[in-house]
Amino acid sequence: MDKPREKCGVFGIYTKDRDVAKDIFFGLTALQHRGQESAGMALCDTTGEKGNISFYKGMGLVSEVFKGDKLSTLHGNIGVGHVRYSTTGASSIENAQPVVFNYSKGTLATVHNGNIANAPALKEELLNDGTVFRSDTDTEVLALLIAKERAHTPTIQDAVKNVSGKLKGSFAIIIMSPRKLVAMRDPLGLKPLCIGKRGEDFVIASESCALSAVDAEFVRDVEPGEIITISKDGIASDKTLVGGKHAHCIFEYIYFARLDSVIDGKSVYDARFKAGEELADDYPVDADIVTGVPDSGLAAAEGYSSRSGIPFGLVFHKNSYMGRTFIKPDKNERSVAVHLKLNVIESAVKGKRIVIIDDSIVRGTTMANLIKLLKEKGAKEVHVRISSPPFLYPCFYGTDVPDNSQLIAGGNGVEEIRKRIGADSLCYAKVEKFDRMVDNLPVCKACFDGNYPTEKF
Amino acid sequence: MDKPREKCGVFGIYTKDRDVAKDIFFGLTALQHRGQESAGMALCDTTGEKGNISFYKGMGLVSEVFKGDKLSTLHGNIGVGHVRYSTTGASSIENAQPVVFNYSKGTLATVHNGNIANAPALKEELLNDGTVFRSDTDTEVLALLIAKERAHTPTIQDAVKNVSGKLKGSFAIIIMSPRKLVAMRDPLGLKPLCIGKRGEDFVIASESCALSAVDAEFVRDVEPGEIITISKDGIASDKTLVGGKHAHCIFEYIYFARLDSVIDGKSVYDARFKAGEELADDYPVDADIVTGVPDSGLAAAEGYSSRSGIPFGLVFHKNSYMGRTFIKPDKNERSVAVHLKLNVIESAVKGKRIVIIDDSIVRGTTMANLIKLLKEKGAKEVHVRISSPPFLYPCFYGTDVPDNSQLIAGGNGVEEIRKRIGADSLCYAKVEKFDRMVDNLPVCKACFDGNYPTEKF
Amino acid sequence: MDKPREKCGVFGIYTKDRDVAKDIFFGLTALQHRGQESAGMALCDTTGEKGNISFYKGMGLVSEVFKGDKLSTLHGNIGVGHVRYSTTGASSIENAQPVVFNYSKGTLATVHNGNIANAPALKEELLNDGTVFRSDTDTEVLALLIAKERAHTPTIQDAVKNVSGKLKGSFAIIIMSPRKLVAMRDPLGLKPLCIGKRGEDFVIASESCALSAVDAEFVRDVEPGEIITISKDGIASDKTLVGGKHAHCIFEYIYFARLDSVIDGKSVYDARFKAGEELADDYPVDADIVTGVPDSGLAAAEGYSSRSGIPFGLVFHKNSYMGRTFIKPDKNERSVAVHLKLNVIESAVKGKRIVIIDDSIVRGTTMANLIKLLKEKGAKEVHVRISSPPFLYPCFYGTDVPDNSQLIAGGNGVEEIRKRIGADSLCYAKVEKFDRMVDNLPVCKACFDGNYPTEKF
Amino acid sequence: MDKPREKCGVFGIYTKDRDVAKDIFFGLTALQHRGQESAGMALCDTTGEKGNISFYKGMGLVSEVFKGDKLSTLHGNIGVGHVRYSTTGASSIENAQPVVFNYSKGTLATVHNGNIANAPALKEELLNDGTVFRSDTDTEVLALLIAKERAHTPTIQDAVKNVSGKLKGSFAIIIMSPRKLVAMRDPLGLKPLCIGKRGEDFVIASESCALSAVDAEFVRDVEPGEIITISKDGIASDKTLVGGKHAHCIFEYIYFARLDSVIDGKSVYDARFKAGEELADDYPVDADIVTGVPDSGLAAAEGYSSRSGIPFGLVFHKNSYMGRTFIKPDKNERSVAVHLKLNVIESAVKGKRIVIIDDSIVRGTTMANLIKLLKEKGAKEVHVRISSPPFLYPCFYGTDVPDNSQLIAGGNGVEEIRKRIGADSLCYAKVEKFDRMVDNLPVCKACFDGNYPTEKF
Repeated sequence: MDKPREKCGVFGIYTKDRDVAKDIFFGLTALQHRGQESAGMALCDTTGEKGNISFYKGMGLVSEVFKGDKLSTLHGNIGVGHVRYSTTGASSIENAQPVVFNYSKGTLATVHNGNIANAPALKEELLNDGTVFRSDTDTEVLALLIAKERAHTPTIQDAVKNVSGKLKGSFAIIIMSPRKLVAMRDPLGLKPLCIGKRGEDFVIASESCALSAVDAEFVRDVEPGEIITISKDGIASDKTLVGGKHAHCIFEYIYFARLDSVIDGKSVYDARFKAGEELADDYPVDADIVTGVPDSGLAAAEGYSSRSGIPFGLVFHKNSYMGRTFIKPDKNERSVAVHLKLNVIESAVKGKRIVIIDDSIVRGTTMANLIKLLKEKGAKEVHVRISSPPFLYPCFYGTDVPDNSQLIAGGNGVEEIRKRIGADSLCYAKVEKFDRMVDNLPVCKACFDGNYPTEKF
Repeated sequence: MDKPREKCGVFGIYTKDRDVAKDIFFGLTALQHRGQESAGMALCDTTGEKGNISFYKGMGLVSEVFKGDKLSTLHGNIGVGHVRYSTTGASSIENAQPVVFNYSKGTLATVHNGNIANAPALKEELLNDGTVFRSDTDTEVLALLIAKERAHTPTIQDAVKNVSGKLKGSFAIIIMSPRKLVAMRDPLGLKPLCIGKRGEDFVIASESCALSAVDAEFVRDVEPGEIITISKDGIASDKTLVGGKHAHCIFEYIYFARLDSVIDGKSVYDARFKAGEELADDYPVDADIVTGVPDSGLAAAEGYSSRSGIPFGLVFHKNSYMGRTFIKPDKNERSVAVHLKLNVIESAVKGKRIVIIDDSIVRGTTMANLIKLLKEKGAKEVHVRISSPPFLYPCFYGTDVPDNSQLIAGGNGVEEIRKRIGADSLCYAKVEKFDRMVDNLPVCKACFDGNYPTEKF
Repeated sequence: MDKPREKCGVFGIYTKDRDVAKDIFFGLTALQHRGQESAGMALCDTTGEKGNISFYKGMGLVSEVFKGDKLSTLHGNIGVGHVRYSTTGASSIENAQPVVFNYSKGTLATVHNGNIANAPALKEELLNDGTVFRSDTDTEVLALLIAKERAHTPTIQDAVKNVSGKLKGSFAIIIMSPRKLVAMRDPLGLKPLCIGKRGEDFVIASESCALSAVDAEFVRDVEPGEIITISKDGIASDKTLVGGKHAHCIFEYIYFARLDSVIDGKSVYDARFKAGEELADDYPVDADIVTGVPDSGLAAAEGYSSRSGIPFGLVFHKNSYMGRTFIKPDKNERSVAVHLKLNVIESAVKGKRIVIIDDSIVRGTTMANLIKLLKEKGAKEVHVRISSPPFLYPCFYGTDVPDNSQLIAGGNGVEEIRKRIGADSLCYAKVEKFDRMVDNLPVCKACFDGNYPTEKF
Repeated sequence: MDKPREKCGVFGIYTKDRDVAKDIFFGLTALQHRGQESAGMALCDTTGEKGNISFYKGMGLVSEVFKGDKLSTLHGNIGVGHVRYSTTGASSIENAQPVVFNYSKGTLATVHNGNIANAPALKEELLNDGTVFRSDTDTEVLALLIAKERAHTPTIQDAVKNVSGKLKGSFAIIIMSPRKLVAMRDPLGLKPLCIGKRGEDFVIASESCALSAVDAEFVRDVEPGEIITISKDGIASDKTLVGGKHAHCIFEYIYFARLDSVIDGKSVYDARFKAGEELADDYPVDADIVTGVPDSGLAAAEGYSSRSGIPFGLVFHKNSYMGRTFIKPDKNERSVAVHLKLNVIESAVKGKRIVIIDDSIVRGTTMANLIKLLKEKGAKEVHVRISSPPFLYPCFYGTDVPDNSQLIAGGNGVEEIRKRIGADSLCYAKVEKFDRMVDNLPVCKACFDGNYPTEKF
């Protein structure tokens, strides 16, 4: 693992009578950066008498899972979709989403981004009651609780509300019951979720970039704690659980979200650009060129360049033909691995002093290899600037922050890390600068400062 | 077709006793930009008594053709590989390379980049003589001529030399006979070919970026007209056919080659950077930001930015998860197609005057869509600068320049094109500026000025 | 549908420490005639501390589902397997067995042959209680009931016993809990199930032919109503529910079971041979040769030949290369379809009077085509003898007897059917002769005589 | 290898304007017993101005190679097809047929059954002339010679005639030039080839069973040495090379051909039935039942039964679900392997004296296993009768007779073999009885008696 990992991306769409398989396909493709291990979608046809559901999920990228004629076998005018990384549950098809099953009211399909911290305890209760499970995921626990609750609750949205009260952790969920979409975001707003509109159609997605992908316009973010219900009667909002305290995940701005998304009112691009400006203010250096590690460090590099006046330049060529199933070089072909993915443009670096920006350093091996390559190609100096502080605390809300044993920062001081990666200087962003990055939006930055927005679990 | 197309990339490697399947795989991956329709490789084991050949080719990307365990079924310490676009021959597995067959001296495997303009006449002669063909390609004509010549010529390299005298057009070829690699470049040097070294091993490739990919060091370009023979006796050169007149394809520098390659002594990155500088000199404009169409316009954008002082900025997010087999949006989802592939970062363009650079305009639809997107997201002005002149003449040397009916430039003046794409201004690079771009290297720029380096065919 | 269909075949094996994936593969292959739509197996390793389960199921034949390296990914020293036809539930992977899930005591895998007639009512109850379903099958209802029961019952075998009291219909089940196999047969013994032994290992299977397939020896049939538990403590039997009234499905002897199986003490081969003898006694005819429709009519043809003295002869060549996914001839290639599958050996039939035996006639089209072929090839007379009476009553116990609209017998008298199929004579076996066929074994022959062994559902 | 192997089956069809892909598919399916390693077909559309060819071949059964939508991609109103075993050439896709290439007159597709004994010398000549090869097969040599000859010969049928004069060995070939089918059979008639008619359409096939498969009627055999040309002008015959001496392969009657085929006027079924009669005359034995090893020994068993008066009975159940890619049991599961494929019906053999007929014994292991199984199930005696003599001489005409080291007969007397297989008696058919089997048809039985119909090669 070279980077912290988000768990998932979710997408939902409600139309009058349009076949939405391709819309979900495009939406999930736009969210692919949030999860590349499995993809799935479930659709329901609400136009006939009986809500017929069709669904499919598989391991791999959206374009791999839904290749060939697969899409044409899926029909419905409403639907939900999901892309997934595995963090806790194993990387297997059983754990892919949507979670789909039949319950007392028809078919229920659930997609979920986040982490239900008390899922083990909730699961234990269900097991003791004779309930069975087909996967290891907290999403299945969540979905089964909702199905159970619904058996004696008048509406699916009320069942969601009742269940959400028992959940500890982060979640952004979309549920498709036979004739409705119900979406909810956890009361702290840890995970993003937004609403779009395309003519009469409604779209719900993890990020605004997925709205553009289906030609929908951004309407607003789902409020933390809000429950949205979309049905033939239009869109309805239940804000009973909306509270005062918010804590949006800072790492969406630093790394997870796509550069062109806007989350909770803040542009991801702007946040990263500003992070670069702050780095230039706090850690200036004499250099000839500023660059970023493609693609996650580029916006911050622009910000650093803009503030410092040092020209921005591309110094790496990134090979985009190395797919998910690419045959990896062996250990003794390690330097090959770096050349293959990111090769240095010699004439861009020869004799130059270079500032290189990345969003984070996990194991440090990639950065060390890049610096080695740059120096081999003639770079005179390489100064590394990281647009986030070192990870110091675990995340309970679904971000897979590596533990100390995997972190180069684990137990090593900045100077020690600098030596290991071979940089001429190394500086990390300061946690107190986040406020400016996101214009004082209330964020959770517990992985950096240990100030958790909830009790620990 | 949105861009002119190169035909192919070639790769060859000679080692003492190392299994080279993975080397060829990595080398072809680095050359993937030169052809994405089919890929193939042939290997030979020269260490045993009998040269056993194994080969495989298929439609698709290198990583698709050689997925799973396929590589492990291919063995040999020498080999050749190929990636292909179809231009004249149909897009079918029969036309994929290497061309492999048994002839009087064992097995011959041929890979070829270029276009033999007189192939139809040469093929006619062979047919009348009772020769049969399995494909539509000029490469097969070439390979069969060499096999025939070899029947009464002492060495394979001499057979190559004799045959090359009959060929009109461009070619960079690598031939694997049971115990040798023979490489040759056409006397004008239209197509690139270079030599690398890794310890005792020799590598031949279309571009230097493929040398890095296998950890080999660049030694030199194959000279136009030179024949290189690599065998257990080392490397040998025959310069009998090396002549004075060279004409390197200018489009390698403008678009085909990879940014990190150096061809005939000139850095591709530098050439594009300088093209941007020239555009800034010739066509200045008041603007807030300079950007390039990813990825082909970025280096020129840096050059424009550097010369003009207008800051460089990324304004598009490029989705890298849309593979070769991606399900295309329908006609009525056209705007979706643009959003999906390249989405605009709203906060980077809102209220701004933008200079956008690309290497060429073919049909103009992509550029028109990008400009529409930029304006929808709030760009105040969009100024387009193209780093090459309009195509006016057909290419006989293997570049697939679209004909007039496909070209937006066909019959339209610059002002008419500007209106169609919706730009506030539009300027094309001047053909006379190429000299500075490539430091007076003798180039073929016939597609722009009609000055062909040979008689027309 | 040309023949009535059985639902399934089940297989289970318990060993000390041998990997049983291949055993299950062989066992299911031997049971393949009982179901060709999907196949699956689940294994558990009881040798380690934690019972790790692995399972796989897919659409198609056993050899298709478990092709390539699939078997090598499945490990365990105990396991269950299943082959399936779809009758009520749709033909989809969701409905394939084993049904596998985690419950309070670990993992439970269930395979089932039969039909739970009151499954809809049982499912309704579960749904109202908040239980969810992933398939349309009665097997899932059964498995969920057992899981629920187990939550407050000391052992899995007791849970099976308690649940079985609620079930109406036919069932032969094998359940794998983390460390045990539990098998049960319905109290009437409608569906077959037998026990085998191989050294220390125990095997449970639908038919004795599957015991041979893994080199196990037949021990005895599971008694109707008996519950068998196999664990590290050996094999145990609970006969609490064993009762006096038995009703074995007669169609196992007529068509379903394999010729080499022995079920409830009666040889399938002998039963069919005797059925042929009875037909010879009841419906003699002057003829030159007796044959059977391959493969289901051959044993009865031998019996007819033996009793009548008319020589047995093969007159059809059966093409065994037309797999499950064979491309079917079009309507206007119908006669081709018959030739392809069963071609007549002209010299065996020319000028001859032929008796042809089959087990049943459903739509009559195949028989009509065969008779047409025989006559075209020169047969003088064709006399048809059917070794079972016409279907008159629906089956509630899992045999998919076509309804009247599909049956040529539906509404047509024997003479009318004879004319339609073009036979010179046509006779059906008499229901009262079954007693001799199976030596007075108590059988269910309700599909022929309407005497159901239970109340109707 | 358990049985001698034929090399191939060929099929050709000429229609006015019907799409023949499915016809070829059905025809090849009927010939599948002649070759199961690869299958292929080539079609040509002669209805338009330009003869467009389409072809496809692959490893595996006809139904595997042409599964899914493959057939629908192949179009033409005339075509040829092929099924293949590999004997000399390796089992690889390169060696699959048809051999298809472009030559001076368009496209040529060649299918071939037989063995060109002097192919190596002919290939050497071609190689020295600069000709290249893509496979190891004698078929390619043949096809290239024809293409070369055609360059200076007025018609394709004349080119075939001229080339056939240089060939030594056996061949039945069908050639598709852009607008004609040309078929030829070697002058000795070693390999079968026959002509059928379906309305206006003509069909050529290795065996008559393939005519039935496309609803065509048998017209006659191609005469040994005859060249048939089918074009828009109808069917034409050139008998210039037809001579007096014929030598039809006896093994077609013994084993290769399908039971329902008639070859050179003799019914395969009759020949095998008579072989059984002869065995009964020559080697009578007191027994209770006669059976055959399925499927190749069944017709001879009928003959033995008919002559001896001992009843015919099926004693084996053959599992037809073990496909080509079936996972084989390990060495220590050997007895499983026998049970799986052929299980004994216990009640059919218990306490009985059994005569078992097979067409040949190669290694003897299968027969030994069957006898062991029979005895385990209670057979009192097992008497083996083989309907052909032991192999003593190699075949030069395309039958893959195993060499002595593989043959149980190699160096062992009959009594020794009997002991090894555990039979109570063992007798082989006498070579002199073949005359009656095939009514004095002139046959080649050199593998049994060493009398080759040509000089040895």
